[in-house]
Amino acid sequence: MFDTLLIIGGGLIGSSIARAARANNAASRILMSDTSMPACEAIKRLGIADDVSENATDFAAEADLIILCVPPGQMGGVAASIGPLMKDGAVLSDVGSVKGHIIEAVQPHVKDSVEFVPAHPISGTEYNGPEAGFATLFTDRWCILTPEDETNPAAIKLSEFWKTLGSNPVFMTPERHDIVLATTSHVPHLIAYTLVRTAQDMERVTNKDVVKFSAGGFRDFTRIAASDPIMWRDVFLNNRKNVLEVVDRFIEDLSALKRAIRWDDGEHIFDELVKARDVRESIIDAGQDSAAPNFGRNES
Amino acid sequence: MFDTLLIIGGGLIGSSIARAARANNAASRILMSDTSMPACEAIKRLGIADDVSENATDFAAEADLIILCVPPGQMGGVAASIGPLMKDGAVLSDVGSVKGHIIEAVQPHVKDSVEFVPAHPISGTEYNGPEAGFATLFTDRWCILTPEDETNPAAIKLSEFWKTLGSNPVFMTPERHDIVLATTSHVPHLIAYTLVRTAQDMERVTNKDVVKFSAGGFRDFTRIAASDPIMWRDVFLNNRKNVLEVVDRFIEDLSALKRAIRWDDGEHIFDELVKARDVRESIIDAGQDSAAPNFGRNES
Repeated sequence: MFDTLLIIGGGLIGSSIARAARANNAASRILMSDTSMPACEAIKRLGIADDVSENATDFAAEADLIILCVPPGQMGGVAASIGPLMKDGAVLSDVGSVKGHIIEAVQPHVKDSVEFVPAHPISGTEYNGPEAGFATLFTDRWCILTPEDETNPAAIKLSEFWKTLGSNPVFMTPERHDIVLATTSHVPHLIAYTLVRTAQDMERVTNKDVVKFSAGGFRDFTRIAASDPIMWRDVFLNNRKNVLEVVDRFIEDLSALKRAIRWDDGEHIFDELVKARDVRESIIDAGQDSAAPNFGRNES
Repeated sequence: MFDTLLIIGGGLIGSSIARAARANNAASRILMSDTSMPACEAIKRLGIADDVSENATDFAAEADLIILCVPPGQMGGVAASIGPLMKDGAVLSDVGSVKGHIIEAVQPHVKDSVEFVPAHPISGTEYNGPEAGFATLFTDRWCILTPEDETNPAAIKLSEFWKTLGSNPVFMTPERHDIVLATTSHVPHLIAYTLVRTAQDMERVTNKDVVKFSAGGFRDFTRIAASDPIMWRDVFLNNRKNVLEVVDRFIEDLSALKRAIRWDDGEHIFDELVKARDVRESIIDAGQDSAAPNFGRNES
C-alpha cells in the first residue's frame, strides 16, 4: 500500500509495526531508526527492517509513510528534524498515547505538501525494546486516528494501513481521544504506579511480605506499573488537564467509599461494588478481555 | 488426615477445598452445607461432597474438622449455631480474608474441648459459586494460619491439611495478617472498585467508549472489581482500621504525584515510576505471577 515505510523508534510499538507490516505486506520497503546504538543492533540482528540507522534524517527523504514511535515528549523534536526533509505527498503519523499536545508539537514542522495523520493503536504489553515486539500485537485491537479531516485521502490510506496490520481503525477528535484515554488508560496507570509506591513505603510491612502475598490482588497492579517510565511520564505531563480531572473525580469517589467504611454504611458499599462488577462482563462481551479466571494466567 | 470434614459455604473457596481434599485424600468423608438451595443442588450435581445439607447443624456433631467458608460478616453467626454441637477434640477453622475481627466474632462460641485455628488461603479468582471452584486453586499458593499458639497440635494438623491440598502454609499473628493483607489485597480491591465506578460516571465519556478502549489498562482493574460484593463489603468493614490507614497513605502519594503533574515536575514523576517498576520483577522471581506479557492473556 505504502512503498517505503520509515519507523522512527524501535521500541515495543515501532518494532511490532515493522513485524506486522512485513507479515501483512503493508509496505514494500521497511526502514527503521533509533537513537540508541544497541537498539539499532538488535533491529539488525532480528532482521525486522531492510535498513537501520541511528539518524532518522538518513531516511526521511525516501519514505512515503513515516511513523513516529518515540515517547510523547520527543515527538516535536523529531518532527522538527525530519519534517523539512520529507518528500511531497508523503504521510506523517505517530503512535502517541496523547493526541492534543502531540499535534501542537508536530504540526508546525509539517510542510504543506505532507499530511500529518495522528494515530494511537490501543495495544501494548508491559515490556519494551525491539525484542518485545511481535507481529500480532495489533490484531483485533482498536487503532484511533484523529485527522483534521476524516475524508482526506491520507487519512483513509493510513486507516487502510492499520487495517492491513490486523487492527480496527476508528476516527475520533483529538479532544475526545484525550479524555477517553485519560479514563481508560492514563489514570489507571497513574493509580497503579501510586499503589505500588504506597505498598513499598508501608512502614510496618516489609517489602518481602508485599511481594510474598501479592497474589491477593496487588500483583494485578504491578503489571501495568512495570510499563516504560519515560513514556508514561510524558503521557501524564502531555495530557495534564484530563488526567488531573479524572484523578480528582477518582479521589472524590474514593473519599465517599472511605466515609462509608468509617461509618459502617454497608448498604452504600454493597451498592457501589455491585455496580462496578457489571463492567467486567461488558468488556468480555466486547471482546476486550479474556473470560478465563485470573486472566487465564498460566499458573503451576 | 482428618476423618470427617465439614465445609460450611459452597462458594469458590469452599467448593475448591472439597475438590482439593478429595483429589489429595485429605479427608475420608466430605460433608458440605450451604444456606442456598440452588448451591446445594449444584454441589450434589457436581458430586464434590459425600453429603449436602442446607443446615450446617445437621452435620456439625459428626465433623473432625469444620471450615467456615462464608463471608466475614457471617462467621460469628454460623459459629454460634454450630459451636455448641461440635464434638470434643474437633478443630474449627475458617478461610476469611480478615483475621482479627473474625477471631473476635468466632472465639466466644468455641467450647474448651475444641480448637479454633483461623486460616486464610491467598488464592481466588473473580468468579464465585460451587461451579467456579477447582482442585488446584491452592497449588503453590500461600495459606496464612493465625493460631494463638503455633505449637498447638491442632494448628500443626491444620497446617498439614493445607499442605496436603497443595498450598504452602505459613504462621503469622492476626494483627500482622490484617495490615499485610490490607496492603496487598484489600486496598487494591477497594481502589479497583472505585476506579471502575469513576469511569462509569465520567459524564463526557459514554460507557460504551470506556468498555471499547479498556485494553489500554482499565480492563486490568475490572477483573478484581468483578469479585463477590458481599464478601468484599464485609472485608472492608471488618478490617476498617487498616484499610483506612493504607487508603490514606495512598491518597497522600497520589496527591504528591498530582502536584508533580500540575507543576510539570518530570523528574519527580520519573523517579516514582522507576521505583514502582522494579516490584514486578520481584513478584515474578518469587513465583507469584506469570512473566508472560499481558499475564499471558489468550488473545486472538
